[in-house]
Amino acid sequence: MPDEMRRIVLASRPSGAPALDNFRLETAPIPEPGGGEILVKVLWLSLDPYMRGRMDASKSYAAAVEVGGTMEGGAVAEVIRSNNPKFIIGDIVNAQFGWTTHAVHTGQGVRKIDPALAPISTAVGVLGMPGLTAYVGLLDHGRPQPGETLVVSAATGAVGSVVGQLGKIHGLRVVGVAGGAEKCAYAVEELGFDACLDHRAAPDAKALRAELAAACPGGVDIYYENVGGKTLEAVYPLINVGGRIPVCGMISWYNLGGLGMGAVDGPDRLPKLWRTVLVNRLSVRGFIVTDHYDRFPAFLSEVPGHIRDGRLKYRETIAEGLDAAPEAFLALLKGGNFGKQLVRVAAENA
Amino acid sequence: MPDEMRRIVLASRPSGAPALDNFRLETAPIPEPGGGEILVKVLWLSLDPYMRGRMDASKSYAAAVEVGGTMEGGAVAEVIRSNNPKFIIGDIVNAQFGWTTHAVHTGQGVRKIDPALAPISTAVGVLGMPGLTAYVGLLDHGRPQPGETLVVSAATGAVGSVVGQLGKIHGLRVVGVAGGAEKCAYAVEELGFDACLDHRAAPDAKALRAELAAACPGGVDIYYENVGGKTLEAVYPLINVGGRIPVCGMISWYNLGGLGMGAVDGPDRLPKLWRTVLVNRLSVRGFIVTDHYDRFPAFLSEVPGHIRDGRLKYRETIAEGLDAAPEAFLALLKGGNFGKQLVRVAAENA
Repeated sequence: MPDEMRRIVLASRPSGAPALDNFRLETAPIPEPGGGEILVKVLWLSLDPYMRGRMDASKSYAAAVEVGGTMEGGAVAEVIRSNNPKFIIGDIVNAQFGWTTHAVHTGQGVRKIDPALAPISTAVGVLGMPGLTAYVGLLDHGRPQPGETLVVSAATGAVGSVVGQLGKIHGLRVVGVAGGAEKCAYAVEELGFDACLDHRAAPDAKALRAELAAACPGGVDIYYENVGGKTLEAVYPLINVGGRIPVCGMISWYNLGGLGMGAVDGPDRLPKLWRTVLVNRLSVRGFIVTDHYDRFPAFLSEVPGHIRDGRLKYRETIAEGLDAAPEAFLALLKGGNFGKQLVRVAAENA
Repeated sequence: MPDEMRRIVLASRPSGAPALDNFRLETAPIPEPGGGEILVKVLWLSLDPYMRGRMDASKSYAAAVEVGGTMEGGAVAEVIRSNNPKFIIGDIVNAQFGWTTHAVHTGQGVRKIDPALAPISTAVGVLGMPGLTAYVGLLDHGRPQPGETLVVSAATGAVGSVVGQLGKIHGLRVVGVAGGAEKCAYAVEELGFDACLDHRAAPDAKALRAELAAACPGGVDIYYENVGGKTLEAVYPLINVGGRIPVCGMISWYNLGGLGMGAVDGPDRLPKLWRTVLVNRLSVRGFIVTDHYDRFPAFLSEVPGHIRDGRLKYRETIAEGLDAAPEAFLALLKGGNFGKQLVRVAAENA
């Protein structure tokens, strides 16, 4: 066991798109766990778009990361020392350990992972927070009925890919929107979507809307929102009376001043959207998965079976080593990942 | 009985705010009811903001009024001839008879009014569509919990005044937004609102927001939306986590090109609103009362009692004679009414 741990801290708050110099690698002695605490070695770090929000000082779901503080992040780790009777050395666990090689934790809210269920990296992916986010947003807020049409943005991402496949399992027509021909081909050929449109190939929202209209001849009943921006503008006028918009993210707007809170050049798109909400009696529902952990048992009773049956596939993009996390995160914000973005912080069974 | 009837037709579609020359008064012989039909004499015509939408060709809830067609509108009328066994001469009835002195109708969907229950004009007001709109929007979509804070715009209008008073009856702190000091005084002194803010006295949304923040020390849990525009911009950043926005109307935006569908100068307010929906997990629900007529029995079992008990008050602004309808409607769109805007088309018991 090395004597030093490494962690990545927020060096400064970004203005607009984050850059590498907003992060700093630090080393420190590996701490001793106190009474009732555990020491873990991180194996897999999850990178997720929500982390962009934690870099800003403005109000979001949760407190911002302090400048100089360790970047927040979910991780899969191995217990290497334990003063807590609930955990033994060798346990594989999941919690928000952060962008770090090692962490001391009280054990509260730490979830034990069963390595027999699936590869342990899935505990921060298809069987973890992104999978549950997909499940709650689609089933609870989207309220799908067989035969309806679902459009999902960021369609090959960790959340979107599960949304679309669950949509197919629940009898929907599923149309994805993703960035690039390769992702779109994957969504249709591997994930079984009925269609997937490349927003990068569409010159503007109007062009993308025309493609969506052709791919959704019965209109759109559910728009699972991950991105905002051009895709939102393209899809909302196509939503049928009684349609639902679970709002899970808005990644294309995360770098607007103060997470979208600054002034943005016009035209003002709000009146049109508001009118569509009114006239088509839409239901728009923002949500965050941490409000819905009570759905974890239902989720875990359904989704692992779909994976075993081959009806629900997942893909991982893996960055090697904690040092690679900032660059991988910046790429994620630009859509450079394919499926779930992970960092292999340490080898399993090493 | 006169031999001629009068009606007001849509002479031309407005571009922007409607004007008197968009309407035309026509006369015609009073028609004979056919087999199974009734002939009614209109007593009270209701004027409502939704009618602005019917004047445009663009898609709305319902079909547009054709140019040359009679303006649509709900009315209370007296049956003066009947070839329908369900109706007798003298029955007081309510249906969408239109802006007209007389109408022939099949009787389908025509609701008989009990004059003993309340003044018959309330059948298009507090005990009719506006009252049901308030009831469904607040109780079903707003899901109020005692102790929560409700903000309602167009607070002294036919809908808003019922929303606020129902809010008080259901244990909410109620803050209205209305146009002018007189309306605000009425909301507080007569209707029992906890506070009412004059949006005309606030130079901009930011100033109005500061006043709202002071009037809502616990934040806002429900924003009952009737107006859009400056009031929406002022209130939504104050909405608490888990807040609800029943979207009933957006009168301040109705005159934007094509009912808000044209381009509007920036800044673009959509990213900020969308972010608030996400971060504060808001539920935004557009609705139209015609989808919710199944709630009429529950509404009629509760609300007349509140009126009899003096807990729910209403006020009417009455224009005299069908000819006065266009001018009264234009004033309504500018907030010139006080409470329910009616046209006395013919005297009761005349």
